[in-house]
Amino acid sequence: MPPSALFFDVFGTVVDWHGTVAREAALLLEPAGVTLDWFAFAKAWRNEYAPSFMPIVKGERSYADLDVLHRENLLRVLAAEGLPPQDAPLVAELVHIWHRLDPWPDAVGGLRRLRARFPCCTVSNGHAALMAAMARHAGLEWDLILGSEPAQQYKPHPRVYRTAASWMRLETGDCMMVATHENDLKAAAECGLKTAYVCRPHEWGRRDGDGFDDMPEGRYDLVARDFHDLADQLGC
Amino acid sequence: MPPSALFFDVFGTVVDWHGTVAREAALLLEPAGVTLDWFAFAKAWRNEYAPSFMPIVKGERSYADLDVLHRENLLRVLAAEGLPPQDAPLVAELVHIWHRLDPWPDAVGGLRRLRARFPCCTVSNGHAALMAAMARHAGLEWDLILGSEPAQQYKPHPRVYRTAASWMRLETGDCMMVATHENDLKAAAECGLKTAYVCRPHEWGRRDGDGFDDMPEGRYDLVARDFHDLADQLGC
Repeated sequence: MPPSALFFDVFGTVVDWHGTVAREAALLLEPAGVTLDWFAFAKAWRNEYAPSFMPIVKGERSYADLDVLHRENLLRVLAAEGLPPQDAPLVAELVHIWHRLDPWPDAVGGLRRLRARFPCCTVSNGHAALMAAMARHAGLEWDLILGSEPAQQYKPHPRVYRTAASWMRLETGDCMMVATHENDLKAAAECGLKTAYVCRPHEWGRRDGDGFDDMPEGRYDLVARDFHDLADQLGC
Repeated sequence: MPPSALFFDVFGTVVDWHGTVAREAALLLEPAGVTLDWFAFAKAWRNEYAPSFMPIVKGERSYADLDVLHRENLLRVLAAEGLPPQDAPLVAELVHIWHRLDPWPDAVGGLRRLRARFPCCTVSNGHAALMAAMARHAGLEWDLILGSEPAQQYKPHPRVYRTAASWMRLETGDCMMVATHENDLKAAAECGLKTAYVCRPHEWGRRDGDGFDDMPEGRYDLVARDFHDLADQLGC
């Protein structure tokens, strides 16, 4: 049975945070006299991501949106690099890089094909305003922006997946989660959703050699090379 | 100062409920042996709308979405016409007419122009799944679908306008409500939003003669003949 709606993880699955953050952080910080390995900087910032929201998932902290967490995490990474504090407008600009990440080359065209047949919704940890800004920047068109804002919670908390299905007036079993992260797909499957793993071998940058194919360890309903392959497999 | 986002009423302002409900109800009910004045039927169904959500606005009833209210109101209108109860699948199909209303002739093109400059969000009493289905049907593209679902409340309750601004991470004064209903614009203005009245002289059907121009009684920041005129006035 085909799903009635597709739910998309966004950071890493639809857009390239690694390449965009490295490039845009360099553009903002080099004029301020900062020189860093920008790809390492992007990874260091992203590495703070899950540790920063897990206290919220565990109920140890009340909901704060991703701008708040990205800002806290940035200050931590800059301090760890021994850099002086940057001024508030520059910090705000750096945080807003995450609102305008570039799509993977297949994302816009693949999504267009998928959307011709299926309602396609974001179920991301990014809040609604961030997702809306990113969609405008990247040329992505969504049926609904769901995820952390309606649930006031972060994936992999089950409330995020269940709220998304509820807003679409669908059973979770009629929804398919599309992601390149296995913990996201496993949490979705535990809520009853179908799952599609999309390979994004360069999410954390290019690997040595050409052989790295990013195949998942777990089992999912579909495994796709990219969004066009997903569209092919779903009969779009 | 131009607004930072435009918030749209939908039923009557973007789409023609009167013409679509009359046509589609006839298509569904005439094969069931029902003959009615279909335009009068559409108006009678719509006339039940505000009385049905006002108990929710007043806190006398907990939130129920527009499918629930449309269904209750339909059964009341059919009973008032002396018609026998229709079977459940047909009632569900009738209720779903409100998910696939046709846009006014200027709506899709005008919205495209407005959206090139401003984030454009629905702030409608329709729930998210209804609005998403309507957008697909009508070819409308929105930045965010806000309104009754995030607020779990109906306009003109102030929580609907305030929640919409909050999800956009904007002050209410940076948002402009676009509607053809003066009570909607007045409630938005009381929350601090800017207001744009759009003339929809045929929302309740064609009037006698050509002179009916549907000018508002109140004062709003903008008064526009249609969405293209609004785009002109906003410098799009």
